[in-house]
Amino acid sequence: MSRLCVHTITTKPLSLEQCLAEFPKRGVSGITIWRQALEGRDLSAVKRQTADSGMEVISLCRGGFFPSATAAGRQAAIDDNMKAIEQAHAIGAPLIVLVCGAVPGQPLTESRKQIADGIAAVLPAAEQAGVRLAIEPLHPMYADDRSAVNTMRQAHEICDALGSPKSDGIAVAVYHAWWDPELKSQNDLAGQKGRLHAFHICDWKTPTADLLNDRGLMGEGCIDIREISDWVDATGFTGHREVEIFSNKWWSSDQNDFLDQIASSYAQLYS
Amino acid sequence: MSRLCVHTITTKPLSLEQCLAEFPKRGVSGITIWRQALEGRDLSAVKRQTADSGMEVISLCRGGFFPSATAAGRQAAIDDNMKAIEQAHAIGAPLIVLVCGAVPGQPLTESRKQIADGIAAVLPAAEQAGVRLAIEPLHPMYADDRSAVNTMRQAHEICDALGSPKSDGIAVAVYHAWWDPELKSQNDLAGQKGRLHAFHICDWKTPTADLLNDRGLMGEGCIDIREISDWVDATGFTGHREVEIFSNKWWSSDQNDFLDQIASSYAQLYS
Repeated sequence: MSRLCVHTITTKPLSLEQCLAEFPKRGVSGITIWRQALEGRDLSAVKRQTADSGMEVISLCRGGFFPSATAAGRQAAIDDNMKAIEQAHAIGAPLIVLVCGAVPGQPLTESRKQIADGIAAVLPAAEQAGVRLAIEPLHPMYADDRSAVNTMRQAHEICDALGSPKSDGIAVAVYHAWWDPELKSQNDLAGQKGRLHAFHICDWKTPTADLLNDRGLMGEGCIDIREISDWVDATGFTGHREVEIFSNKWWSSDQNDFLDQIASSYAQLYS
Repeated sequence: MSRLCVHTITTKPLSLEQCLAEFPKRGVSGITIWRQALEGRDLSAVKRQTADSGMEVISLCRGGFFPSATAAGRQAAIDDNMKAIEQAHAIGAPLIVLVCGAVPGQPLTESRKQIADGIAAVLPAAEQAGVRLAIEPLHPMYADDRSAVNTMRQAHEICDALGSPKSDGIAVAVYHAWWDPELKSQNDLAGQKGRLHAFHICDWKTPTADLLNDRGLMGEGCIDIREISDWVDATGFTGHREVEIFSNKWWSSDQNDFLDQIASSYAQLYS
């Protein structure tokens, strides 16, 4: 369990305080904090409370959403990412995961250019703050309005275009990438280039009832999570495996039972 | 309108007879017949009725679904595809579109191998019958149970592995492929190799409420259909543009109004 991390969004009905209290009872050793959970809170208090919980802060979710049809929109996105960098620094999160963004109807090539420009604009501040950024390629079913970056290959291309800065890497999520025939080779490349910054797990259910909020608990679906996890570890990755589940079904269940099931399915997966 | 084809599934509430009567009133010049529409019908009568409608039969949908966890299941799939070839021949359809299949939990690499084996097993009969086959790469959100072939690159790899038989090609569907950064280059390759056998259009809605049955009418979504269509035509493709829309919304609407809207949105798209 020393590598088990849970995202606050996974147990969305719980407050941050409840997450900090309940996660460690199941042996969870890392927490990724979503920005919603920080609203109205004193960030230095959050940093202290998290340290007191015994858990490590793995990352802050999420930055990104750089593309916009207007220059003002793109500047607002950059401003928001600058704020995220400040928040990450304040709570001691070493990493921000980027959901890169897309604008319906705007050519994907243009959105990808705006994403690269946006990351370039905030990278110096991130480096200054000691915060790394991770591009999370999203499943192609989100290419319309969530991310024009849909494969690891594309994430690498953006890292390359930015001159391979050390602070800019990739978050591999099994949910988004499991279908990709290039997943293993692009994962290996990420290892070689020192770009593998984060690893997210959950499962793909058959059928999937909702594009956004019907992700499965590990074992509920068809993804060979262990195989992908082994590929990731083979690159030398020793970071946490982050459980990130958006699920109307699980959110409407008892969250303590859900956490028990997360811990047991994780233990079974890595036994 | 000389290149407008409509799939019978697009107006699912209509019988085949109604399709044959209503499509031509809007100038539709081609029809792709789904196998459900043939159930219980005399195939030579269907061939005659279709010819009488003045429309050309573009293809029969659909063959495929080759992968199975058991040898008996794979043989049943081959038998079913042999039957589809007979049906296509009997109604005068020159092409069968293949939705290749996948088995939840079975490695995608194994499913892809079974797909290639399945196509190899039926190709001689298809050639004998003068029926071509078209691999339709499906959107990655269908990789669990509908198709382990999710990009044009993968479809090309299967064609290559089979020795590039003339009868085996690719169906390009904007819905499945619009997000793919390799779409243009792989489309160009399909043109060079004589593999571009069919072209399907519809639109991607934001938000998409259902993974299967919430496709949009052209213009309802974010796909630059005209750009992709121009790429397809630039390879020398002169075939029909096939309107294939699965939509609970449109199926529950008046189908005559829907056909009017298909014709007008098509005319606007290609004006």
